[in-house]
Amino acid sequence: MLVTCGSQQALYLVGQAFLEDGDEVAIGGPTYVAAMSAFDAAADVEYIDVPIDGNGMDVDALEARLRDTDPAFVYTVPTFQNPSGTTMSRERRERLVDLADEHDFLIVEDQPYQELRYEGDHVDPVAAHGPERTIFLSSFSKVLAPGFRVGWLAAPEPLADRLAMLKEPIDLHTSTFSQHVAAEYLRSGEMDDQLSVINGVYDRKRTAMLDALADGMPAAVEWTRPEGGMFVWVTYPEGVDTKEMLVDASDNGVAYVPGFAFFPNEPRRNTLRLNYTLADDEEIKTAVERLAETTREWL
Amino acid sequence: MLVTCGSQQALYLVGQAFLEDGDEVAIGGPTYVAAMSAFDAAADVEYIDVPIDGNGMDVDALEARLRDTDPAFVYTVPTFQNPSGTTMSRERRERLVDLADEHDFLIVEDQPYQELRYEGDHVDPVAAHGPERTIFLSSFSKVLAPGFRVGWLAAPEPLADRLAMLKEPIDLHTSTFSQHVAAEYLRSGEMDDQLSVINGVYDRKRTAMLDALADGMPAAVEWTRPEGGMFVWVTYPEGVDTKEMLVDASDNGVAYVPGFAFFPNEPRRNTLRLNYTLADDEEIKTAVERLAETTREWL
Repeated sequence: MLVTCGSQQALYLVGQAFLEDGDEVAIGGPTYVAAMSAFDAAADVEYIDVPIDGNGMDVDALEARLRDTDPAFVYTVPTFQNPSGTTMSRERRERLVDLADEHDFLIVEDQPYQELRYEGDHVDPVAAHGPERTIFLSSFSKVLAPGFRVGWLAAPEPLADRLAMLKEPIDLHTSTFSQHVAAEYLRSGEMDDQLSVINGVYDRKRTAMLDALADGMPAAVEWTRPEGGMFVWVTYPEGVDTKEMLVDASDNGVAYVPGFAFFPNEPRRNTLRLNYTLADDEEIKTAVERLAETTREWL
Repeated sequence: MLVTCGSQQALYLVGQAFLEDGDEVAIGGPTYVAAMSAFDAAADVEYIDVPIDGNGMDVDALEARLRDTDPAFVYTVPTFQNPSGTTMSRERRERLVDLADEHDFLIVEDQPYQELRYEGDHVDPVAAHGPERTIFLSSFSKVLAPGFRVGWLAAPEPLADRLAMLKEPIDLHTSTFSQHVAAEYLRSGEMDDQLSVINGVYDRKRTAMLDALADGMPAAVEWTRPEGGMFVWVTYPEGVDTKEMLVDASDNGVAYVPGFAFFPNEPRRNTLRLNYTLADDEEIKTAVERLAETTREWL
């Protein structure tokens, strides 16, 4: 275990520890953007983009890519992925570990959303299947408070030691003050209540968004149906550029994150990310109606 | 201004921003060790070690070295330096800025101890003389609480912007929670009282250490007389290796930090650092008596 300054710092340390110029990293297409920033800060790396479908990272596609690539590690957000909202099935998690053993790569498993489940059953983390292959990251940011900057990683001891050594010149250690506050909070037993509260609220908002999408969106548009987390990923017909559409959407009073930025290589420009955790139910309904309006003009 | 995760992170960012393999950095001999760790994490650098005397960094010696070197920056802890306890005079600070203008280098001014003054007059920071040349660092660690991990840097805007960009992939930002706590504390007006209290306590402890050194140490041993901060720097006659002496000192129930580790290049092995802020007055007296005993055996 190593306590880090949010899991962003864990990503940065992983980059510093395992990447050199020319190395390859297998990563979701789409994936969490700031992970690439952390890796890019360490070295000039090549990304192997692995498609994401309704069951998370497509491990068959990864296996095919492994024939002609040799990644230093695979980076994955297996549960309620940012940005797609999808969750990797248990079978795929097991196969990912098998591939890691076979092809000798590490798995960097980023799990900030795992506790934010509103339906369906908990899926064991990848690290549960291959602890000796996996660096598991998580954080208080999504369950306690954003900006608290207390995260952690769990890794085989030699790897955790190496990452701890790299952390020292960066900031000596993570705030002991924040760590004491977090420890006190965990001891208080209030985390379970906190999770019940936010999961209840987020579930309601998610439903509001999914209902509004079903009510308003033209049939040619598809979207994911997340069982937890914060995001819905929307796919438009080929040819619609959501970055261009954003100008009209903004004029119509609604914003979203265009999908192109989430892709390491060839962006799928007909995608976008919606978040339902911040706005209230009425705002979500209004926003999706406006997006549907703009969409109809673009189809 | 950029708020950092302690001033250690500011040092790390400075290294990442301004150092490439083969660059030179002018630095005190002795100097703060973790600054070198931060710079070494960025690149293979050559250190130009500038002697420290009773008036801090010897700027004449620096000027002489500038004839055949070209440092990316000069790193200095000008006030109550770690490890020597000495303070750079106003005249030297002004000349350092003149040299920076003349030879076109940056000054990295690390000021964690400035507010811990027990006698003498405040000396304006180097940044007051050459703000456009200086990156000024400080921290709450020495005045509020160690481990709080809230520091800051002040630099000309284009440099501060560049350092902020580099911080983002490392940890996104410094804990907003800790920043709120620090801001609330500063607003409360209690910082002045806090400084009065700790400066009173540290002054008393410093006096206890200096008195005990004067009472017990053989005449051949010299030491600095800091006007503030946390450290006394002790110099033994040539030939005494304080790292070797530490074994006997430990057997005699006292520890210190051997001086060799504080030198970037050729270590002066006949030096050591004492700290007086942690132990209580009686412990300080006993410890210095023990050190004096061991010293007599080694002279």
